[in-house]
Amino acid sequence: MSKKVTIRDIARLAGVSVTTVSQILNGKGERFSKKTQDKIFKLRDEYGYVPDFNARSLILRRSSSMIGVLVPNISSPFFGTFVEGVQQVAQHERMIPLIFSADRDAELEQSYLSQMLERSIDGLIIASATMTTDTIDKIIGARDVPYILFDQNYAQEGTRVLTDDYHGGELAAQHLADLGHRKIAILEPQELSDNFTQRLSGFQDCLIKNDIELDVNHNVIKAPLSRRGGYDAAAAVIQTGATAAFAGNDDMAIGLMRGLRERGVEVPDQISVMGYDNIYLDEYVSPQLTTISQPITDLGIGAAKMLLNKIHSDQEQEQIQRFPVKLIQRQSTAKLQ
Amino acid sequence: MSKKVTIRDIARLAGVSVTTVSQILNGKGERFSKKTQDKIFKLRDEYGYVPDFNARSLILRRSSSMIGVLVPNISSPFFGTFVEGVQQVAQHERMIPLIFSADRDAELEQSYLSQMLERSIDGLIIASATMTTDTIDKIIGARDVPYILFDQNYAQEGTRVLTDDYHGGELAAQHLADLGHRKIAILEPQELSDNFTQRLSGFQDCLIKNDIELDVNHNVIKAPLSRRGGYDAAAAVIQTGATAAFAGNDDMAIGLMRGLRERGVEVPDQISVMGYDNIYLDEYVSPQLTTISQPITDLGIGAAKMLLNKIHSDQEQEQIQRFPVKLIQRQSTAKLQ
Repeated sequence: MSKKVTIRDIARLAGVSVTTVSQILNGKGERFSKKTQDKIFKLRDEYGYVPDFNARSLILRRSSSMIGVLVPNISSPFFGTFVEGVQQVAQHERMIPLIFSADRDAELEQSYLSQMLERSIDGLIIASATMTTDTIDKIIGARDVPYILFDQNYAQEGTRVLTDDYHGGELAAQHLADLGHRKIAILEPQELSDNFTQRLSGFQDCLIKNDIELDVNHNVIKAPLSRRGGYDAAAAVIQTGATAAFAGNDDMAIGLMRGLRERGVEVPDQISVMGYDNIYLDEYVSPQLTTISQPITDLGIGAAKMLLNKIHSDQEQEQIQRFPVKLIQRQSTAKLQ
Repeated sequence: MSKKVTIRDIARLAGVSVTTVSQILNGKGERFSKKTQDKIFKLRDEYGYVPDFNARSLILRRSSSMIGVLVPNISSPFFGTFVEGVQQVAQHERMIPLIFSADRDAELEQSYLSQMLERSIDGLIIASATMTTDTIDKIIGARDVPYILFDQNYAQEGTRVLTDDYHGGELAAQHLADLGHRKIAILEPQELSDNFTQRLSGFQDCLIKNDIELDVNHNVIKAPLSRRGGYDAAAAVIQTGATAAFAGNDDMAIGLMRGLRERGVEVPDQISVMGYDNIYLDEYVSPQLTTISQPITDLGIGAAKMLLNKIHSDQEQEQIQRFPVKLIQRQSTAKLQ
C-alpha cells in the first residue's frame, strides 16, 4: 500500500499523540518542547505531509457526525433491516447515518464514496460485492477514515462483521437430507461473491457427507439474486425433477415459490423450498419459508458499534466479529412423500 | 412566514440577478454601476442580510451535489421503492441522494434535518407526517434550500407530489360493493395523517352512495400501520362478522391475511381483504393482494425531478404534481358467497 502519509503516521514516527502533532502544525505548540516541535516539522517536510480538511475536523473535535452506509440495494428487505440496525446505534450516538445505494454499479459506488469522503464523513460501512479493499483504500487515500466491511466482502482483509456462510450451507443441506430428499436443485447467482461460494461449498460438502449426489450440470441453476430471478427459474427447477430446492437467498426462494404455485406445483407437497437470510417476508408468504437465519439487525448493530469504536479510538488493528447462523424450520419444507 | 431575508430576496428587491448581488457583496462588483452597487449595499443593511455558507456555495456554483431524502421508515417496501425512484433521477444528474430515516421521531427528524442543512445540502425531499411546513421553514430559516413534500404532508402548503387519496378510497369501496359485500370492516391507524383522512373519507362516502351502512363503533378497528398491526388485529376483524376488510395500507393487509390464515379463516372465501399502495410484496403473498395502486417509483421520480428543477431554476412558485391511483384486482377479494 502506497498510502499518503497521515497525521497518525507522523504521530507514530515522532512517538507523540495525534493531538500533539495537530497542535504543533496548527501553530498552537507553545506548550511543547522546542525539540518536539522541531521533530514534527522535520517529519512533516520529510514525508510531505499535507493536512486535509477531514483530518483537521477530526483533530479539532469538529467531526461531521455523519457515517456513510453503502448498500447494494436499499429496497431489499435484507439491507433495509441491516440499515435499521445501523440506525439504532447511530441515533443513540447522535450520528447521522447516510445511506447510499448504487445498485451494484461499481463506478457509481466509487464516485459516491469519494464524494462522501470529501464531505468529511466520520466513517463508512461498506456492504458491496464490487468493492475490494484495494479499491476502497485507493479512494480513501491519505484521508484517515475508518471503515467496516460487511456481507459480500467475506474474504477481504479489513475490519468486518460476518456470519459463517459455510456452516449455514451445511445446515441447509442437512435439513433437506434429514427430510429424505435425495434429488436436490440449487438456485444460485451468476457471479458468486465470496459469501455465496462459502454458502454453496458448505451445502455441497454436506450433501456428499450424506451420500447425496448433486448433478452440477443439470441441477444447479443460475438466476439473478432477486424475487424475479427465482420466479423466472421455476420452470427450470421443475424440469430437474428435484423434490427439494435450495435458493441462494430468501428473495429468490419467495420468487420461486410464486413461480411454482402459478405452474400448479404445490410447496412443500411436491417440492420443498428453502431460502437463506431470514428476512421479514418469510413469515408473510404462504407457506411460510424455511430458511437459514442470519441475525440481520444484529449485524447492522455490530457493524455500527465497531465503526464507532474505530472512530473514537485510534486503534488500527483488524477486527472480525462473527454472528451465528441457524436453521429456521417453517412450512415450505416437508418430509419426502 | 417571517423568513430571514435571502440573497434571492435582495436580488428581487433590487431588480437584478442573484449573481450580481453575490458578486457585489463578495467584493467583485467592479463591472457594475456605482448606482447598482450602492443599491445592493443599502438593501443588505436595510434587511440585515447575512450571507451563509450554503448560499455562498450556491452562488459560486460549488453546490454540494447532495440531496437529502427524509422518510419515516427505510425498511418499508413503500418507502424503499419511493427512494429507488429518487435515486434513478439523482444518479442520472450525478447528485448523491442521502437517505435518512428517523422512525417518525419528530425530534430526531428535526435534528437530522438541521445537520443536513449545515452541510450545504442542495435540496430536500421530505416524507414525514410529523413535519409541518412551519417546522421545516423554521429549521431551514435563512438558508435558501428548496424542498419537496411527499405523502403524509397532504394538506400542507408547499411544492409537493401527491396522489388522489380520496378517489383511491372511493375505488376501494366501490370494488367491495360491486362484489356484493354489505358488511365491511376498516383497519386504520390510530393517528390519521391527512392522506389517511382523505382515503377513508372517500371510502366511507362511497359506501353511503351504495347504501352500505358502516358501523363506525364496531367495524372501524384502530391498529398500527404495519404488518404486525394487521396481524394482531385479525381476531378483532373476525369478531365484527364482516365479509370484507379494507386495510389502510398493504403492509397492514398482508399482516391481516396472515393472522386470518392462522385462525383458519380463508381469504377470500370467508373474508375478502384489500389493501392500499401496491407494494411489490402484493404479488408474492398468497392469495395475491387486491389493492389500490399508487405509482410509487413514479412518485419518487417526480419528486426528484421537481426538486432538481427547483434547485436549478430560481422559481419559487408552489407546484403540485398529481399522480393517478387505480384498482388492481388480484386474488384476495371475491364475490360474496
